[in-house]
Amino acid sequence: MSDPRALSGYWLRDNCPCAECRDPGNDQKLFQITDLPAGLAVRESTEQDGHLAVLWSDGHRSRYPLARLAAATGPGLGDPDVPADPDTADTALRHPGDHRTEAAKRLWRAADFAAGVPEAHWDAYLADPAERAAVLRAVRHLGFAVLRGVPATDRQVLAVVRTFGHVRVTNYGELFDVRVEPDPNNLAFTSAAVAPHTDNPYRDPVPTLQLLHCLENAAEGGDSGLVDGFAAADLLRTEAPADFALLTRTPVPFVFRDRTTELHAERPLIETDALGRIREIRFNNRSIGTLRLPAADLDAFYAAYRRFAGITLRPELRLTFRLDPGDCLVFDNTRLLHARTAFDRDGRRHLQGCYADLDSLASALAVLDRHTEALDTLQELFEGAGAAEYLGEAVTQAEHMRQAALLAQRDGAPAHLVAAALLHDVGHFHGAVTGAQLMAGTDNRHSRTGADLLARWFGPEVTEPIRLHVDAKRYLCAVEPEYRAGLSEASEHTLRVQGGPMDTGEAAAFAALPAAADAVALRRWDDRAKSTDADTPGFDHFRPLLADLLAAGAAGAAGTAGTGGAAPELCGTAERRR
Amino acid sequence: MSDPRALSGYWLRDNCPCAECRDPGNDQKLFQITDLPAGLAVRESTEQDGHLAVLWSDGHRSRYPLARLAAATGPGLGDPDVPADPDTADTALRHPGDHRTEAAKRLWRAADFAAGVPEAHWDAYLADPAERAAVLRAVRHLGFAVLRGVPATDRQVLAVVRTFGHVRVTNYGELFDVRVEPDPNNLAFTSAAVAPHTDNPYRDPVPTLQLLHCLENAAEGGDSGLVDGFAAADLLRTEAPADFALLTRTPVPFVFRDRTTELHAERPLIETDALGRIREIRFNNRSIGTLRLPAADLDAFYAAYRRFAGITLRPELRLTFRLDPGDCLVFDNTRLLHARTAFDRDGRRHLQGCYADLDSLASALAVLDRHTEALDTLQELFEGAGAAEYLGEAVTQAEHMRQAALLAQRDGAPAHLVAAALLHDVGHFHGAVTGAQLMAGTDNRHSRTGADLLARWFGPEVTEPIRLHVDAKRYLCAVEPEYRAGLSEASEHTLRVQGGPMDTGEAAAFAALPAAADAVALRRWDDRAKSTDADTPGFDHFRPLLADLLAAGAAGAAGTAGTGGAAPELCGTAERRR
Repeated sequence: MSDPRALSGYWLRDNCPCAECRDPGNDQKLFQITDLPAGLAVRESTEQDGHLAVLWSDGHRSRYPLARLAAATGPGLGDPDVPADPDTADTALRHPGDHRTEAAKRLWRAADFAAGVPEAHWDAYLADPAERAAVLRAVRHLGFAVLRGVPATDRQVLAVVRTFGHVRVTNYGELFDVRVEPDPNNLAFTSAAVAPHTDNPYRDPVPTLQLLHCLENAAEGGDSGLVDGFAAADLLRTEAPADFALLTRTPVPFVFRDRTTELHAERPLIETDALGRIREIRFNNRSIGTLRLPAADLDAFYAAYRRFAGITLRPELRLTFRLDPGDCLVFDNTRLLHARTAFDRDGRRHLQGCYADLDSLASALAVLDRHTEALDTLQELFEGAGAAEYLGEAVTQAEHMRQAALLAQRDGAPAHLVAAALLHDVGHFHGAVTGAQLMAGTDNRHSRTGADLLARWFGPEVTEPIRLHVDAKRYLCAVEPEYRAGLSEASEHTLRVQGGPMDTGEAAAFAALPAAADAVALRRWDDRAKSTDADTPGFDHFRPLLADLLAAGAAGAAGTAGTGGAAPELCGTAERRR
Repeated sequence: MSDPRALSGYWLRDNCPCAECRDPGNDQKLFQITDLPAGLAVRESTEQDGHLAVLWSDGHRSRYPLARLAAATGPGLGDPDVPADPDTADTALRHPGDHRTEAAKRLWRAADFAAGVPEAHWDAYLADPAERAAVLRAVRHLGFAVLRGVPATDRQVLAVVRTFGHVRVTNYGELFDVRVEPDPNNLAFTSAAVAPHTDNPYRDPVPTLQLLHCLENAAEGGDSGLVDGFAAADLLRTEAPADFALLTRTPVPFVFRDRTTELHAERPLIETDALGRIREIRFNNRSIGTLRLPAADLDAFYAAYRRFAGITLRPELRLTFRLDPGDCLVFDNTRLLHARTAFDRDGRRHLQGCYADLDSLASALAVLDRHTEALDTLQELFEGAGAAEYLGEAVTQAEHMRQAALLAQRDGAPAHLVAAALLHDVGHFHGAVTGAQLMAGTDNRHSRTGADLLARWFGPEVTEPIRLHVDAKRYLCAVEPEYRAGLSEASEHTLRVQGGPMDTGEAAAFAALPAAADAVALRRWDDRAKSTDADTPGFDHFRPLLADLLAAGAAGAAGTAGTGGAAPELCGTAERRR
């Protein structure tokens, strides 16, 4: 593996993680594949410091973390993610796998939920990122989850969607009402049973998620049913491989028309990926249109279709449960078939539903996981390297940062400044130049390194004061003579390495920056946070504050649907930076 | 063909068009495929009146139009639609085909648009259904069209989407700004060229449509480019079949992450359907993640990928044009690659974009086509059978209906009542019992037949007065003795066949119906519309009024996104009726 000649050259170059090849802000590549010359080859390669350094025949230089290379080229094809490395938490050499296929799912039968279905209370879901991640993970792995205690009010289902994604509007509107009112004069509303099916197969792309929020359910009967369509297809594959294969390769027309709509889609009942893995189920007899095939092929198709339909009706596959007011069922419409038992006409039952998509849900889950990972990484830093390094002061780096945060908190600073104070020196532990080297006379630009690291997780309200906190020292030395006089010996030492006091022009430019005031405030806590007798709380004390900041940032982004966002691909990569 | 033993039995039964098998309101099937017994067979079959009548082994009876059967089973697999038959304008035995594959497209090169790109002016697009259909058809067949003269105002692009579908919200928001402002201090905005690519390949499902609306373009350069990705893939298939095959079967990871988003999708660069036809292109080097394959496979993939990328850059494939303020480009993001030339940093350029989906666009087009078909059908009826049949009066049916409409128009009736007056007797020309048979003593329920026929196209404001116009006669005979005295001889004759005057209870119930007043108004025009010397305008006079009503109905439905719609599949088929 460490011999780069055993690697594919264009693949290796396409995955170069350098800042020239890849935008550090969003990991998007900054070159076209056609920009690489024909006959590209490795001219030299060396291993050092856990990295593979490559000099290419066109003069470009690349540097790859060996662990990531090993993971990306090793035998574990299809394995879960390589664990994140905070030094290189980008997409280069990471392969998340296709989370839409059966390989990423846990197939189930009804008995698997004898102890209960995957569920969470709405309040806990909102308050606790771990609870939220568990719900989203259940939808991704099992195909569904139930939220309990969601306020049983009109349009509340849209608020549920906003916690992880965006509504997919269809001809049924932004949301739809599943409401059956007893009215024997009107055939338009029935209380009949509905067999397991997926929704909107006549849409292409089909909505990949569905939500059903129960507002009222006073009827006898009317229970909800779910069938794992992947499990049913898996059974078909085992019991009748030829039928399975036929259903994966026969495009089936699905049709819906009413006065204002005429939808046609043509997709197989069971869709597999290029590797033959089950990836999507469409199953809805009501909207299957007319297949045009030779009669013998039709006979074969209908035999396979009826066999598959029979499997979906097996009682052991069907999970039945009741939605009560306040329950919101979230499920994968490309995998689970949903159904309803019959109920008495005199009972009132009212659900509100809407559609959404799995990609946004998976994104929300990944961001939640990233937050957990971030907090764990920071905690480890405070309790590991940070607790060991002194950097010229009488307190450890970790204690220094915790003291700064406590001072900010005691001064009534807002959460983002407490976080900035807590994290202001994390740059000493990352990047090519260490804090010790700074002390030896090489500026490690730790304010910038730290801000860049933290920008993966936190917004500019946290990162920009950190980015400027060294400049704030140089600024204060320029405008407040008594400030410089009060600097510690180590701080006076690093001031010189960092460029000395600002001149008048520099100071004016600094003061005009939006984050200047916050950076100066941070600087003053920084300077005071060197007490050896302070009784400073541990990282655990600050973790919830950081968690809230992370959650608020992600929620803010999910809630921006109504405003113009940054421009996607058309506008050029550099414009993607935020 | 006419021998049903040559047909697939389950297929034939699954396509039974009877009202027991298929909801007349929305054509959705009312049975599950598993409801059909094992060993189902044709017991008897006969041909009559252009239909095949089948008695099934389970006792069910079906009746199929022979022409539709022939079309559905004939050699023209993949042919366009069977022309509509107004008697059976349902989905049974119709096969629209998969409009997403290359088979339904016209592949192109830049030179094909030497005479200009497909375009329309916004005003004409809004006013003229034919213009609107032409634009949507261009997007469907060619992959794009340009609307000119769209008001260059903020968020106007969303109004364009609303004419044919729904916005797909993404992490970029409901809409996004492609805005480049010269600011040499800020690398976040560039004026660099952007190579041909598709957007959001890291989404699954990918947004299938994109809109770009130019608000300002004062820059030198910054021209837009489009490449037909299907044509490029077709060239690859011709020039390097093995490379083409490799790209269709290699799942490629696409990745996007920023602070609030982490999207992964895994799909081939060229997606084909089960029959091997090109169906979707994803092409975006910037967001391709790390493939995990053996080195030899990676070499082969990269060779194929680079070859395909090279084809997309061929000048003869690239259509270049300029978007000026007010221009809105609508294009298929699963087929066309879009690009931009470089431009000077000092020029201002601002586009607003958003995403939407092809399925709704195809639906809007199908409904527009259906409207044209409806108007043609009605015109033919007025100028054909309607102009020949007298039905006991001195004027033809067509003249009678045109007179009724003219009377309504002269009375200042709203458009929907003019339409109701014009179309109130179309039921005489449809259904199993003819108008002549009504005169012979069999009630042909023409008010109901007509209303049901028209409900495919018109809303209840048109159809319900028509449905009630015979009851209105029976009502008026009950409550206005002088009304009955004024009936024509033929009308007095049919009154008896239709059930005679209402009794008191019937009359009260009728008067309580929402459409009762409109039905009574219609009835009075109906009764007066029997003049032999009236100079009544032809159908052409009324056609624009009908066209406007049809367009308003469809637009009303497209604009209901904010309100709760009818419930989709879960609520049971009968609930789908409107």
